[in-house]
Amino acid sequence: MRTTVGIIGAGPSGLLLARLLHNAGIDSVVLESRDRSYVEQRQRAGILEQGTVDVLRAAGAGDRMDREGLRHDGIELRYARQRHRVDFPALTGGRSVMVYAQTEVCKDLIALQLKEGGPLLFEAEALAVEGADTDSPRVRFRHEGVEDVLECDYVVGCDGFWGVARQAIPAELTRIFERTYPFGWLGILADVPPSHDELVYAHHDRGFALLSMRSPSVSRLYLQVPEGTDAEAWSDDDIWAELERRFETADGWRLERGPITQKSVTPMRSHVHEPMRHGRLFLAGDAAHIVPPTGAKGLNLAVGDVVTFARALTHERQTGSAELLDAYSPTCLRRVWQAERFSYDMTTLLHRAPDATPFEDRLRLARLERLASSRAAETELAEAYTGFPF
Amino acid sequence: MRTTVGIIGAGPSGLLLARLLHNAGIDSVVLESRDRSYVEQRQRAGILEQGTVDVLRAAGAGDRMDREGLRHDGIELRYARQRHRVDFPALTGGRSVMVYAQTEVCKDLIALQLKEGGPLLFEAEALAVEGADTDSPRVRFRHEGVEDVLECDYVVGCDGFWGVARQAIPAELTRIFERTYPFGWLGILADVPPSHDELVYAHHDRGFALLSMRSPSVSRLYLQVPEGTDAEAWSDDDIWAELERRFETADGWRLERGPITQKSVTPMRSHVHEPMRHGRLFLAGDAAHIVPPTGAKGLNLAVGDVVTFARALTHERQTGSAELLDAYSPTCLRRVWQAERFSYDMTTLLHRAPDATPFEDRLRLARLERLASSRAAETELAEAYTGFPF
Repeated sequence: MRTTVGIIGAGPSGLLLARLLHNAGIDSVVLESRDRSYVEQRQRAGILEQGTVDVLRAAGAGDRMDREGLRHDGIELRYARQRHRVDFPALTGGRSVMVYAQTEVCKDLIALQLKEGGPLLFEAEALAVEGADTDSPRVRFRHEGVEDVLECDYVVGCDGFWGVARQAIPAELTRIFERTYPFGWLGILADVPPSHDELVYAHHDRGFALLSMRSPSVSRLYLQVPEGTDAEAWSDDDIWAELERRFETADGWRLERGPITQKSVTPMRSHVHEPMRHGRLFLAGDAAHIVPPTGAKGLNLAVGDVVTFARALTHERQTGSAELLDAYSPTCLRRVWQAERFSYDMTTLLHRAPDATPFEDRLRLARLERLASSRAAETELAEAYTGFPF
Repeated sequence: MRTTVGIIGAGPSGLLLARLLHNAGIDSVVLESRDRSYVEQRQRAGILEQGTVDVLRAAGAGDRMDREGLRHDGIELRYARQRHRVDFPALTGGRSVMVYAQTEVCKDLIALQLKEGGPLLFEAEALAVEGADTDSPRVRFRHEGVEDVLECDYVVGCDGFWGVARQAIPAELTRIFERTYPFGWLGILADVPPSHDELVYAHHDRGFALLSMRSPSVSRLYLQVPEGTDAEAWSDDDIWAELERRFETADGWRLERGPITQKSVTPMRSHVHEPMRHGRLFLAGDAAHIVPPTGAKGLNLAVGDVVTFARALTHERQTGSAELLDAYSPTCLRRVWQAERFSYDMTTLLHRAPDATPFEDRLRLARLERLASSRAAETELAEAYTGFPF
């Protein structure tokens, strides 16, 4: 098999990249190790930045998002039983975010790809990327029990943190930047309308809680829990009681309970792999960087990466200049580090580390009060939350 | 001896408080353990916030400051050999700061106090505050070898971190919040015109450096050094060479050398004593809180405290209501914690801790780049630097 761009991974970044390249008249093949139904059900992020929304629309993949997605013009910060709303459009000149689950983005892109795009192979497991530093890189993969080779001009690794793509970059050329956090998120899906129409980020002495939603009838809620917590150790009643405690307000706001349909614990990690390119192999999304979920940046960063790659390759095709391709890694990393910074800051702003000192507790409170009293501080948050430009 | 307000300490906060009370027709006595020349030569802070400048003027103590002080409309941030100016008035609607040494503020206030204020006793060492929780608190002190008692309606402890005032608040009512830093500042005074007309805050892989000034002919410069460094271990040549390294820019900016006339190391500490009031004893300035010097907040916080006290007592005299006096501690602490937050952030933004991880190094760089590229982030800094409202 041969193609211009071999894409490893049919998550949102791989699928979107295939779409962007198709629209630019560049052919690609997508290899995905899982089957279609797994990919279409994987629960992940749910907040699309303004720039991500714009890109999906421009790529012709925004119809259902615009019908079913929930545009959000703000978030609520909650601390010391007080509520403070951050108004995105008012602070950023009209920008907002869209609540539309990553799973739904994937479904839309898969449908488009199968209808009018290049090959998308499910249960096609990439085994290795070879010849990344040559003019003809190859992906060895196994499909339906048979080993095969995909010959490419470029390979883009959209295969996540555990994928093979990053392993093809020699360790001696690689720098890893990492931070782990001594807590995780216990996340639930519940069949109950969200108790608030925007996301609520709550800081409480007992820890962080987040109210989010998947649709007008499905709530998505999270609790900060100690690292290594087993989701099954929490009964449904315990989860609701703890959520009620952390979301409690002085004005008597109420959290509606409902049947919990899914329960899992996500660890928290910051991770950056530099560089994001080696020869003709390019890393995108989780293959190159992980953020803690607090700032809702993971999916949006992945979109930024593939937009940058598609733009660079299109530029090369149109002008013959590899200038933008050569700038891929530093261009992406500037945005990545801003998102890493923001995600780290949102995480430390809202969580309570088990070893936090009383000084750090007061500092955190002062930061929250600053956000609630300085338009500049609030604007800085709103700009970062709605997204850095692609 | 008897007075309405017994003030312990003739640093800027004690002296300013005496002046504010005098202007409001309230009598006071100031007790200072050191002699006059010591107080008038003690090298401390040198940056007055807009609000501090306004207060000194309104108190009739701003004449020489307005003649000799240097109004600064910005600072320069320097990192990765790049220069970025933060324009205070443009970002804050006209606010700026004044470079005018604390020593000079003290000289001006001492001259005024001796000319037209109440008693100001030098070499009068406060030994203890007694009866803070009664209607008639007393300060026991020793003056010219003789023990005496100052009977007061109120006592204000402006006697710094090591003073006796804070010791009069029972430990069981007290909470201490603290953070130390694994580095200090090696500060020099040099007889050479400042190499830049505004303060330069430089972050370098080797650590922080600050270019400041005392006057058009005297430079004040600082280097981050490891905790516990002996100033004498640094030769003058070594100091200049290290300063040159840390201030180096891509555009060839030059640091002028000159004779070093003073050399000392300042440790870095964040410290807050809560509450700031016990009965009729009120703490102000360093007696209640310490900030690392990076944000230039120490002196200004002390001014905020005594302005708050003078306003509260004046209100009580005029209306009979102790409402503002009762609110003294929470009112001051809100401002104190904002300054603690800012000072901590400026410190971590610009210094390199010896145990910093590569992830933290990149995060610091991302913060600096954010400041240089987001008007909102820059505004947040400019607002805090020029000062929170009194």
